[in-house]
Amino acid sequence: MNTIKISAFRWVPPPAQGLVRDLRVRWALEEAGLAYDEQLIDWGEQSSASYRTLQPFGQVPAYQEGGLTLFESGAIVLHIAERSDALMPSDPGARARVKTWIFASLSTLEPHIQNLVSNDLFHATQDWAKVRKPVEQMVNKRLLELAARLNGHAYLEGGFTAADLMMTQVLRLLRHTSLIAEVPTLAAYCRRCEARPAFQKALAGQMAAYAGNEPAYA
Amino acid sequence: MNTIKISAFRWVPPPAQGLVRDLRVRWALEEAGLAYDEQLIDWGEQSSASYRTLQPFGQVPAYQEGGLTLFESGAIVLHIAERSDALMPSDPGARARVKTWIFASLSTLEPHIQNLVSNDLFHATQDWAKVRKPVEQMVNKRLLELAARLNGHAYLEGGFTAADLMMTQVLRLLRHTSLIAEVPTLAAYCRRCEARPAFQKALAGQMAAYAGNEPAYA
Repeated sequence: MNTIKISAFRWVPPPAQGLVRDLRVRWALEEAGLAYDEQLIDWGEQSSASYRTLQPFGQVPAYQEGGLTLFESGAIVLHIAERSDALMPSDPGARARVKTWIFASLSTLEPHIQNLVSNDLFHATQDWAKVRKPVEQMVNKRLLELAARLNGHAYLEGGFTAADLMMTQVLRLLRHTSLIAEVPTLAAYCRRCEARPAFQKALAGQMAAYAGNEPAYA
Repeated sequence: MNTIKISAFRWVPPPAQGLVRDLRVRWALEEAGLAYDEQLIDWGEQSSASYRTLQPFGQVPAYQEGGLTLFESGAIVLHIAERSDALMPSDPGARARVKTWIFASLSTLEPHIQNLVSNDLFHATQDWAKVRKPVEQMVNKRLLELAARLNGHAYLEGGFTAADLMMTQVLRLLRHTSLIAEVPTLAAYCRRCEARPAFQKALAGQMAAYAGNEPAYA
């Protein structure tokens, strides 16, 4: 039994496979070389009273380590990164910059990207679809701003850090669109980061759970 | 001249006054007892090439301290909190929990709340209005989950921390609605936090800039 335990869904439908937020935490743990156990939960279980003692909003993942319980993929990745030089440099100013980019991924890009995902995957036949265009325009604006900053640099701050982990995982949510492919700087950036062995191992870990637990009706 | 400088708008229309994100940073600096200078920018200037060297997405605030430049109110508040026992306890586990709640405020509550704000303040006469109801339902779900966790506690983690600062500032975005008033636990929580002298001083600081720079046409 490992010290660290993370919650994940036992199975999710294919459009969500490889996107659920525990993947971010798995990747950080793989980069840091920290072993972990899974607490696989069934769909619906995230709303139970017992799960909500771990995660008040009924989301995945929750993180347990000894007596400490954390939630929010951003907070968990930061917690892991603060202990690993594979994810964060040692200079205090550089560390603060990495944190700035983690927040930028989650606050400045992800909300617009998530709006587009929600529109396309869950509401495409409803009134939501009527407001898709301005949502996509906002996403594209942010992508071009990010590309302008990245241009000529392989990573956001020096070498690969937790900032790149989080940013590429937010961009990954757009895989059902061609928006990333249309911005070559970002397409190359995502390929560069997701080629890392630790990401491949993390993704295989999430997919292994799903493969072993596919419901009979699926 | 102080070591710390933050960017803020010289003036914004009344619906945005008291909501612009530099308020969060001003509040953290007041709690920590750190003096700061303002870099007031005109509307439109946030999109200039020179401002984007500070803030690649053209947002307010940016934070400068010696040679360090940070952006994202979450990252800046965290940076200040990590140096001040007024905003974060000393126990490592408790600090990780405070960070969890900062991320929860920004990732789990703010995106839905911001969608409602964008709908109501900027798109009320457009197609957006047709999708207002599900957006409001999602906001309300999150508010009730937060209230369930807060119930009986004055603050999110022990005494007042940066987690409460960030959470109440996210809730503050709903001031044009009655959603907070309808959840007495949250209404009391917001009043409790915003009664702090440091918040009042921070708010006065933001409003003083606007009061001195109201355009003639406003």
